[in-house]
Amino acid sequence: MMSRRVSIPVRVGSVTIGGDAPVVVQSMTTTDTRDVDATVNQIKELAECGCELVRVAVKDKQAAESISAIQSRVSLPLIADIHFDYRLALAALYAGADGLRLNPGNIRDREQVARVVNVARERGVPIRIGVNAGSLPVEFKPDVPLAERMVEAAVEQVELLESLDFNLIKISLKSFDVIATVQAYQDIAAKVPYPLHLGITEAGLPRNGSIRSSVGLGILLHQGIGDTIRVSLSAHPCLEVAVAFEILKSLGLRQRGPTLVSCPSCGRAEIDVIALAEATSQYLERVTEPIKVAVMGCVVNGPGEARDADVGIAGGKHRGVVFRKGEIVATVPEKDLLQALIAEIERGT
Amino acid sequence: MMSRRVSIPVRVGSVTIGGDAPVVVQSMTTTDTRDVDATVNQIKELAECGCELVRVAVKDKQAAESISAIQSRVSLPLIADIHFDYRLALAALYAGADGLRLNPGNIRDREQVARVVNVARERGVPIRIGVNAGSLPVEFKPDVPLAERMVEAAVEQVELLESLDFNLIKISLKSFDVIATVQAYQDIAAKVPYPLHLGITEAGLPRNGSIRSSVGLGILLHQGIGDTIRVSLSAHPCLEVAVAFEILKSLGLRQRGPTLVSCPSCGRAEIDVIALAEATSQYLERVTEPIKVAVMGCVVNGPGEARDADVGIAGGKHRGVVFRKGEIVATVPEKDLLQALIAEIERGT
Repeated sequence: MMSRRVSIPVRVGSVTIGGDAPVVVQSMTTTDTRDVDATVNQIKELAECGCELVRVAVKDKQAAESISAIQSRVSLPLIADIHFDYRLALAALYAGADGLRLNPGNIRDREQVARVVNVARERGVPIRIGVNAGSLPVEFKPDVPLAERMVEAAVEQVELLESLDFNLIKISLKSFDVIATVQAYQDIAAKVPYPLHLGITEAGLPRNGSIRSSVGLGILLHQGIGDTIRVSLSAHPCLEVAVAFEILKSLGLRQRGPTLVSCPSCGRAEIDVIALAEATSQYLERVTEPIKVAVMGCVVNGPGEARDADVGIAGGKHRGVVFRKGEIVATVPEKDLLQALIAEIERGT
Repeated sequence: MMSRRVSIPVRVGSVTIGGDAPVVVQSMTTTDTRDVDATVNQIKELAECGCELVRVAVKDKQAAESISAIQSRVSLPLIADIHFDYRLALAALYAGADGLRLNPGNIRDREQVARVVNVARERGVPIRIGVNAGSLPVEFKPDVPLAERMVEAAVEQVELLESLDFNLIKISLKSFDVIATVQAYQDIAAKVPYPLHLGITEAGLPRNGSIRSSVGLGILLHQGIGDTIRVSLSAHPCLEVAVAFEILKSLGLRQRGPTLVSCPSCGRAEIDVIALAEATSQYLERVTEPIKVAVMGCVVNGPGEARDADVGIAGGKHRGVVFRKGEIVATVPEKDLLQALIAEIERGT
């Protein structure tokens, strides 16, 4: 793994993005922001499932003004997502938004941007330049490859903000195309010192969207690029948070909750690995410690991998062995294996 | 994306691995190989869901001998997975296996390996040196980092096979640890010219196992490393195949079936994006053409992304627009949007 790219940290409310801060997991509400109760409830769910920053869509003045009421009732910092209208950005700032996301494809008037920047500077609120392949103006360099177009759009906006003496900047360059997105982030990472917000946009439903996001974000994070991530899925935002943490956990960048190692089963398995793994996973949903648990079907790889786990089971002929950090603690019939594993987990790491 | 690593191709039955052949998707049966009917049925399911090579566990002589009967009834090349006993490798070869996977942690006697290699050479059958972190001998260089230990174990085995004048070699270096696995494959890729079989072992249940596999395999494939992949999940092997293809599709390395672009919905959406995306996805399960379909919630990113898709919909206030390669073909109420999209898809690309 390459060492992490150095970026100038910014603060969104109480959360630091960039520098040597951990990679931050964020998501976005799916509720109508004008519906304060619904939005507060979803943000509370997001806080509980581990989300660290929340973005809310601001499509009109009432939505912008709702931020104030929402903020007084939740603990997570709020970022206002603005697409078309600089006046909504101003209204969100006045309502107390902790961060702004502006889409440079849509707000390009220097005077309008200057008005937003002045208020953001006064309040110490960072602005994310959120480039999205889908909303780059059609007339914007149509003959240039997508990655370059996204980078050029971002750099143009960075220069605009810098020329207005503003540097509380984050940048994202999202598209559905993994290769173009990776290329764009690599290029911008080398050009500017600001923190990067990673995402593969419109990645789809959970199954395939997780795969596409994991590939794209995994490649970048492994190169040390990325200070905050948002996994975009057509699903409840808590699922985005869960996937984001799994990506970060797989690269050792964050730790959250248990990790389940389980083998795919094969013609060699003598216990029902899949059923046992599913039951174990269901049990682990209530566990919050970062324990590593292994469920293995046979003596070939089982003991080796299970030795590596904090607690594990490996199956033999209708029976199994329970390990704890390399030591066999029990041999039990298959039907008692799950209970024996749970008992070991409950003893703690 | 880096250009593909050059490897010496080998053939497993009718399938080429390495060289400039497409990255091959493989899986492994979960049935008892001695149960010929069950194994044949699962291999037929695997062939239907797109699997290109199948591995079967050979844990005893009867399993090895079953390969002959299985092979006469299926179309996919068969690889015999051998862990402990060189006699099973010989029996599998005599039964007509198209490939062998040997675990160097378990078969280390030069004379025994020579006997297997002689028969494999005569029959033109390649051998995969399948290193697995979990089954490296405990006494094998315990103080060296995992990636190095896996590479050294593989190189030792490569040298053994080469010294026996055998070079129909593939290599895998699997562990649960993504960083170590990536490092090991990068190192072996620079040391030997043989095709590489990628996998993250014991990755777990579908949701988290897909994420872990996508991160690990995605990083390597993006670097041009990898000639065949197996996604290991505690699940039906057809799910492994589906995930493998999604990883390859996300990097443009393979094309298979439709691709669904769908936005995560947000407070801006005026149609029910998630329900529409799910219904579209369900419909697309029956579609085999590589069509790109977009389901978008609003006018902000929707039209831009949907223009990029072969067919797409973008929502407005309780109604939506259907696009076909950039051209609006219909404006319909929300309740008719799915049918209108399906009608457009059925018209073909």
